[in-house]
Amino acid sequence: MLDRDHCLALDAGDPLREFKDEFVLPEGVVYLVGNSLGALPRRTAERVRRAVADEWGKELVGGWNTEGWYEQPLTLGDRLAPLIGAGPGQVVVGNTTSIAIYQAVAAALRLRPERRVIVSDVRNFPTDHYMVQGLAGLLGDYEVRDVAAGGFEDAAVVLLGEVDYGTGARHDVPSVTAEVRAAGALMVWDVCHSVGAMEVDISAADFGVGCTYKYLNGGPGAPAFLYVNPRHHAAAENVLSGWMGHAEPFAFEADYRPAEGVRRFAVGTPHVLSMAALEAALDMWERVPMGQVRAKSMALTSLFIDLVGDALEPASPLDAAARGSQVSFRHPDGYRVMRALIDRGVHGDFRAPDILRFGIAPLYIGYADVYDAAATLLEVLDQELWQDERYAHRRGVT
Amino acid sequence: MLDRDHCLALDAGDPLREFKDEFVLPEGVVYLVGNSLGALPRRTAERVRRAVADEWGKELVGGWNTEGWYEQPLTLGDRLAPLIGAGPGQVVVGNTTSIAIYQAVAAALRLRPERRVIVSDVRNFPTDHYMVQGLAGLLGDYEVRDVAAGGFEDAAVVLLGEVDYGTGARHDVPSVTAEVRAAGALMVWDVCHSVGAMEVDISAADFGVGCTYKYLNGGPGAPAFLYVNPRHHAAAENVLSGWMGHAEPFAFEADYRPAEGVRRFAVGTPHVLSMAALEAALDMWERVPMGQVRAKSMALTSLFIDLVGDALEPASPLDAAARGSQVSFRHPDGYRVMRALIDRGVHGDFRAPDILRFGIAPLYIGYADVYDAAATLLEVLDQELWQDERYAHRRGVT
Repeated sequence: MLDRDHCLALDAGDPLREFKDEFVLPEGVVYLVGNSLGALPRRTAERVRRAVADEWGKELVGGWNTEGWYEQPLTLGDRLAPLIGAGPGQVVVGNTTSIAIYQAVAAALRLRPERRVIVSDVRNFPTDHYMVQGLAGLLGDYEVRDVAAGGFEDAAVVLLGEVDYGTGARHDVPSVTAEVRAAGALMVWDVCHSVGAMEVDISAADFGVGCTYKYLNGGPGAPAFLYVNPRHHAAAENVLSGWMGHAEPFAFEADYRPAEGVRRFAVGTPHVLSMAALEAALDMWERVPMGQVRAKSMALTSLFIDLVGDALEPASPLDAAARGSQVSFRHPDGYRVMRALIDRGVHGDFRAPDILRFGIAPLYIGYADVYDAAATLLEVLDQELWQDERYAHRRGVT
Repeated sequence: MLDRDHCLALDAGDPLREFKDEFVLPEGVVYLVGNSLGALPRRTAERVRRAVADEWGKELVGGWNTEGWYEQPLTLGDRLAPLIGAGPGQVVVGNTTSIAIYQAVAAALRLRPERRVIVSDVRNFPTDHYMVQGLAGLLGDYEVRDVAAGGFEDAAVVLLGEVDYGTGARHDVPSVTAEVRAAGALMVWDVCHSVGAMEVDISAADFGVGCTYKYLNGGPGAPAFLYVNPRHHAAAENVLSGWMGHAEPFAFEADYRPAEGVRRFAVGTPHVLSMAALEAALDMWERVPMGQVRAKSMALTSLFIDLVGDALEPASPLDAAARGSQVSFRHPDGYRVMRALIDRGVHGDFRAPDILRFGIAPLYIGYADVYDAAATLLEVLDQELWQDERYAHRRGVT
């Protein structure tokens, strides 16, 4: 069942197989870091060339209207919305995940002024936690509490990542959202490590944030997005009240007056060239059947875990439904293992103290890729490390 | 003296004349909106192509190290620093002007906790004022006072634009900075409308912010920059405490710990593609003699005012030293005048209620361009508007 020919047969029957041709992938490399920076879609170069040469070069300042630059935060938001279970007019694109988190959490605090607790998760991606700490430090009189301490009854807002960036463990979004909201707190989901890898639905949450440079393939430092539940559109405040969130940015009024709807969460001038690259990726995503992406993701991550067997201790959940599209293992010499793997063309990453991370992007990673990655990993463990006296006891385990 | 042949002779003797060839400029247009969006440098398309195809496409996630993406906020900051009178390690590039203003003003408030007044200027570019209003609204207990109300004695921070975006009037940076600091307040300069058009020196100020998409030609929505005076590097706090400002971003520590120096003011993941376009522009700026830029700018703006004569009321200062690199006029039917001008290939912009703005970017605008723009403006006033009974009294004035 687990031999390479079987994997090739699975690739041949993969309904997503044609998407791999839409990416520029390096020769001789199995790229398992799409959970950090997604691969380059072939269509992107031309879209960015056009943004530079035709839009900026020919339209100049007129591009704000003729090329729709001014509307990009909303038009791209509308196109991205289905990927997180949201509808039109609920998502704004721009800035960075860090900024979006600040906006979401600050808005939530303003909506729950009687509560003084922010629940975060020390396992959240660090910038989430850092941004909350900065906001709490500025405001004073707020407690930042780790979710492990339990209890949402006094929380103004709860900020969690759908998929743990380290282990790939996945929260049950509907039940956590319901629990948080039942306690009277507001829920902010960070979907950086889930969007584009599975069917995400944060429509019941109050706010959501995410990046577009991982599974969505928007490019290095691609813009982030912010979801605001329509029930908050009238009352939620954007504390980063820049001119692009003003009701009439080009009226140049003396005082800030928020736009209607999610537009008020736009801040400054959008990064048009980075937006163009994201737009190219979204052109592709509109054709992607996300149910098949999730099915393939679960199959690939399970295959990887099965192939590695007991040669390494999985840090990821063994139940595919409880896992994102990554597999993490623990190894006390993880850094050295990863270096040896990369030298052999299998690219994952290492996170201190002992995590080997492998992101599986189902649009351009196939079954045979996973087979080759696992085989190489086993070879590294055998040849590189097991010569080391410290690992002598592992010899012959597989 | 003011005929077109004389202008052509001035162009022929212009020491900056060769820079015009470095830009892609639209045929048949005199582009006087470089104070809003600067023109496309020819070198930019190739630099951005390389960022997409070679850096992202080939290096993938490795580009954070191999292509220097991680260091971009500081390396580009160091290259930009001389344009504002700053030194290495004092400027960080990224985000937007709006975000940089928030960071600067919030940091200033933290450094002056005993004071509760923020002085801004209703004539500042609106986003400056809006961001301050958002911050004050979040904190409560702060007064946002217009600079016209006078007095810095109780101010924590004063935020002013070096050049007024509407009229082009220029503040005397050294004297205002000295006055503000003598009163114990901190000075934040917004140099969006001066950087790249004159020798800017805000090194005596506490903070400075600016954009790179106007005279610096960094592209639509190009990243902004933030200057932090070294005297504040140890104590100034970045309230937008994202992971890129952490002392060790990739250590993934549980708690925020600020980096040394200006790096702590980095926030989230930099927009690499937008950064690449800015880098191309900076390649050019390193060869630009800024003293000559300012001399030409003063000559061109004076020429424009002289040529228009008393056909329109200048909104800009008549003394070139008190002016930025733009000329503004007032006209009660300004919108209609500007539409007619644009139809004839002279591109400026209109700001309600009655301001016609013309930005003069000395690297790609010449004396004959200004002559043609002024001649077209006079023609429009003559042919289009003076047929209108309301302007009958102006007939024959020029």
